[in-house]
Amino acid sequence: MKIKILTLFPNMFNGFLSESIIKRSIDNNIVEIELIDYRKYSNDKHNHVDDTPCGGGAGMVIKCDVLDRAIKDNRNEKSYVCLMTPQGRPYKEDIAIELSKKEELILICGHYEGFDERIRDYVDDEISIGDFVLTGGEIPAMAISDSVIRLLDDAITKESYEDDSFSYGLLEYPQYTRPIEYDGKVVPSVLLNGNHKLIREYRLKESLRKTLKRRPDLLENRSFTKEELKLLEEIKKEEE
Amino acid sequence: MKIKILTLFPNMFNGFLSESIIKRSIDNNIVEIELIDYRKYSNDKHNHVDDTPCGGGAGMVIKCDVLDRAIKDNRNEKSYVCLMTPQGRPYKEDIAIELSKKEELILICGHYEGFDERIRDYVDDEISIGDFVLTGGEIPAMAISDSVIRLLDDAITKESYEDDSFSYGLLEYPQYTRPIEYDGKVVPSVLLNGNHKLIREYRLKESLRKTLKRRPDLLENRSFTKEELKLLEEIKKEEE
Repeated sequence: MKIKILTLFPNMFNGFLSESIIKRSIDNNIVEIELIDYRKYSNDKHNHVDDTPCGGGAGMVIKCDVLDRAIKDNRNEKSYVCLMTPQGRPYKEDIAIELSKKEELILICGHYEGFDERIRDYVDDEISIGDFVLTGGEIPAMAISDSVIRLLDDAITKESYEDDSFSYGLLEYPQYTRPIEYDGKVVPSVLLNGNHKLIREYRLKESLRKTLKRRPDLLENRSFTKEELKLLEEIKKEEE
Repeated sequence: MKIKILTLFPNMFNGFLSESIIKRSIDNNIVEIELIDYRKYSNDKHNHVDDTPCGGGAGMVIKCDVLDRAIKDNRNEKSYVCLMTPQGRPYKEDIAIELSKKEELILICGHYEGFDERIRDYVDDEISIGDFVLTGGEIPAMAISDSVIRLLDDAITKESYEDDSFSYGLLEYPQYTRPIEYDGKVVPSVLLNGNHKLIREYRLKESLRKTLKRRPDLLENRSFTKEELKLLEEIKKEEE
């Protein structure tokens, strides 16, 4: 996969590209990341990429002509162009899976007050990583790149993500490691007795319990297996 | 405000700290950010911070004793300690506002499979930036720091954030800047005629229209002013 990031602050990605799984995925040719400073697509002598908003107001708006030229110069028939914007569709694991199947992503990072509205006609998608305001699209572009890259073949082991939160529409079950006892708190004994059937059941049940308690919204449109329904019944009785 | 970030990958923050509003806020003493590599709180000779999960499974789990020592050594009576985890409460602009009032934040970034469950007893809050899985808590810690810092006094002008998406529980209205005509697309004439009353009304109406179309969920528990209700009626008629 190739990811092109259009940004006015390419240096913001320095640390992101040089650490951990992202670095390893680049080194192993699983992904190629290209940072493009779109200031070079400005065609005025001061290299302006933004201007004051029509109708007045604070802040600066990114010009649509600059971004249109930047997109045209970088997209090809395989590119999927995404605008990073709080007005986009809310990013979730299923969108990460969808994006991980594309051959090339172009992620466009705004800054300042936002984009000229007309640029929306030139992109394939608009994505928001959450209902909060950031100073630019660089952190969302990192979040999307990171979540997509870890789904690519060989980036991490399959077992490793199958247990993660949201992989089955549930929060992850509680994890424990040594020491077995710490500060009076003990690892649940079922995890220590080596009975894999009981461990599996304990984990599924605690996943359900945690999701029910913390994020009941995740369960609303989810269908359940027979085993899950039985465990949910048990949980309800226990919590009474 | 002081933000302490507990991480195993402090270099990931290099670019984040050296650009744009974050750099300016640090330079102007609006915020101080300290990166703490909590590997130093390991007390075994190989500096391990993680271990295999009790009960089996892929990946490594961050040890609770290491993090407990790291928290104890860094927290004081003013600290508010937040764990970055997909199992936390979903981060939204109102949490950013809440956190921006704290004197000191301690943001703990996991990595690998996650934290030993017992560490949750030692923190004040658990925060998730969204229903997607990342390789670590570093990007969430950047997102939270960025969204909080921009709300601090003097980091950006007040006018600048009052118009942003979510500031009034709505998506931001469409923004335009020059050129007035581009590729056959023209800036709405109301924004060019200098009538501030009409411009304000246009923007509020388009904010409502965009939110209604893209994120009706944001309107569900919101109360509306008389003017907003009138504009919503107009929008409904226009869309019929």
